[in-house]
Amino acid sequence: MHAARIDAVRKFLLEKNFDAFLLTDPPDVRWCCGFTGSSGFLLVDQSRATLITDSRYQVQAVAEVGKASGLSGVKVEIQRESAIDHISESGLLSRAGSLGIDSWRITVAFAADLEERFPDVELHPIPSPFKVQIAEKHGTEVAALRRAQAVTDAVFDEILQSIRPGLTEVEIASEIVHAHLIRGAEEMSFPPIVASGPNGALPHARPSKRRIRNGELIVLDFGCFVDGYASDMSRTISVGRPDADALKAYDVVHSAQRAAQDEAQSGMRAGELDRIAREVIEKAGYGKTFIHSLGHGLGLRVHEWPRIARRCDDILPENAVITIEPGIYVADSFGIRIENSVLLSSSGSEQLPKSDTSLIVI
Amino acid sequence: MHAARIDAVRKFLLEKNFDAFLLTDPPDVRWCCGFTGSSGFLLVDQSRATLITDSRYQVQAVAEVGKASGLSGVKVEIQRESAIDHISESGLLSRAGSLGIDSWRITVAFAADLEERFPDVELHPIPSPFKVQIAEKHGTEVAALRRAQAVTDAVFDEILQSIRPGLTEVEIASEIVHAHLIRGAEEMSFPPIVASGPNGALPHARPSKRRIRNGELIVLDFGCFVDGYASDMSRTISVGRPDADALKAYDVVHSAQRAAQDEAQSGMRAGELDRIAREVIEKAGYGKTFIHSLGHGLGLRVHEWPRIARRCDDILPENAVITIEPGIYVADSFGIRIENSVLLSSSGSEQLPKSDTSLIVI
Repeated sequence: MHAARIDAVRKFLLEKNFDAFLLTDPPDVRWCCGFTGSSGFLLVDQSRATLITDSRYQVQAVAEVGKASGLSGVKVEIQRESAIDHISESGLLSRAGSLGIDSWRITVAFAADLEERFPDVELHPIPSPFKVQIAEKHGTEVAALRRAQAVTDAVFDEILQSIRPGLTEVEIASEIVHAHLIRGAEEMSFPPIVASGPNGALPHARPSKRRIRNGELIVLDFGCFVDGYASDMSRTISVGRPDADALKAYDVVHSAQRAAQDEAQSGMRAGELDRIAREVIEKAGYGKTFIHSLGHGLGLRVHEWPRIARRCDDILPENAVITIEPGIYVADSFGIRIENSVLLSSSGSEQLPKSDTSLIVI
Repeated sequence: MHAARIDAVRKFLLEKNFDAFLLTDPPDVRWCCGFTGSSGFLLVDQSRATLITDSRYQVQAVAEVGKASGLSGVKVEIQRESAIDHISESGLLSRAGSLGIDSWRITVAFAADLEERFPDVELHPIPSPFKVQIAEKHGTEVAALRRAQAVTDAVFDEILQSIRPGLTEVEIASEIVHAHLIRGAEEMSFPPIVASGPNGALPHARPSKRRIRNGELIVLDFGCFVDGYASDMSRTISVGRPDADALKAYDVVHSAQRAAQDEAQSGMRAGELDRIAREVIEKAGYGKTFIHSLGHGLGLRVHEWPRIARRCDDILPENAVITIEPGIYVADSFGIRIENSVLLSSSGSEQLPKSDTSLIVI
């Protein structure tokens, strides 16, 4: 898997006529060579692939890169001061006239530093050149995404047993986090959202001390990292019977999510998938209440390319995992969001969460 | 407080002869105008200060910026598509010939986008121009840092009651997170480190399923955000009596931490503070085992300027909060790190954590 990725970088270098490419962001370095540390640079040219990291990671880097790269021969070098100092001192760029970098991941300051340190190397910033390859998940990556979702599924089952009127949003959110970590999640993929009653109308509400009341909807949105890969799921549940307005809106979001998930497949335009869900919501008269885009790619980052949004012409790749998460937000009243992650193929999509999306009343 | 910060930005514009400055990173935007949302751009020129954010944050932004900015008059504008589209459509940069941006926070792709969209505006990337002002904490910020540390202190007291042989690192880490969140922390400032026995020798070990054994040291490093401000504390405790080597090393780290903390004050060179701790460790013969720098600034980010490291000539500012965290790491055997955050003044430093740093044996 990683040998093919280093080959993909080399193929890109040939196409662009660059001498080398520098990957600096941990998820990208991990994607390309298997190194899981929090800091390390991967420099790839046609004859060498070098992971530069610090002494904290010496043993781990050699083990991970050796295991992952097989015949591709990634060499680990340990920096004394910074990685950039090491690249300079070791002459790793001495024969390079041009260097590709990822303009989405490199700051203006870092690029300026590279220019100053390597005046003979021409920098070529490219926006995320490997985003399609990163989106196309290998079988081992899909397995990790499933493991992350399995933890989230188990947590959802567990918290359904404990949610009741009188609990605060913070109490539920704290339990969600604890239940993920105790099951082996490395960390949460984002702070969980537990938004009850009118708080649900804020798509990114923070858990508060507000107590759950009977007859209210609660928007739950949470996920974790397992083996570096993210889960991300939303469910809206009801504590006691909701009122007719909330029930009606739930049915609309449920239908919109279902419609988009049923049509989702690789080869499709991302904007088209957004449109399918949005039309259901618009036709029901809630168009102005769906105030965000439909979803996003999921992988080593919780938000990765592609965005599933209006006016987005990106084509959904085979074996990409994306989220489909329409919502309705009625100010001062309630919010509803239903989100599944799905694995795309040319014949459709497979839902990763095991729970269904019908309204759960507890 | 925020009016003075907008004035500081304006003063910087005058000094540099720039027409406007664009802040884009949430902690910087929050520092300058009080807006706590996860996305928003603040554009400051001599006559206007405009916060551009999305419709999710309309009510919140007006409330926060109105309260925070007082007479400074920050205007909130809601973008329809992106903030950059809004700046373009609204003509906010139409009279600007030059625009300052923070090169530490802006990607090469975003800068390229700005250049394309505003061809008549000359971009001036500056590395974190307000880092000193951000480091100099206002009284209300110190109060928030104390509240964050108070939560961490309470959690430390609590977990000392429950740690015992047989528990796994993951179990302890999960409890640490839960105990922070239930007390109102917004989120952890980083995933907690719970590294027992030989795992302690890896400064950034992840909590594992390893069970705590009697006679072992455990490195605990954790913190949270309260009202946007971070805590960050490390303690190394012993479960049962540690062996003589570990005890000796503990005393060395303890002395090094104490020596640096006793000497810390504003006006000092950061590298000098690192040297004080490092010399204690080197003189005791452990020089090669202290494999990281001494500390870092703490505030709206868990790692902020200045770095407290060798060869760092930055002068420690008055009212800055920094960490002082020396360590000794003996491969395959044990690790020790002791970390306090301190508030600097010209007469010394005040320790924020309430617990002392003598070895706790449980």
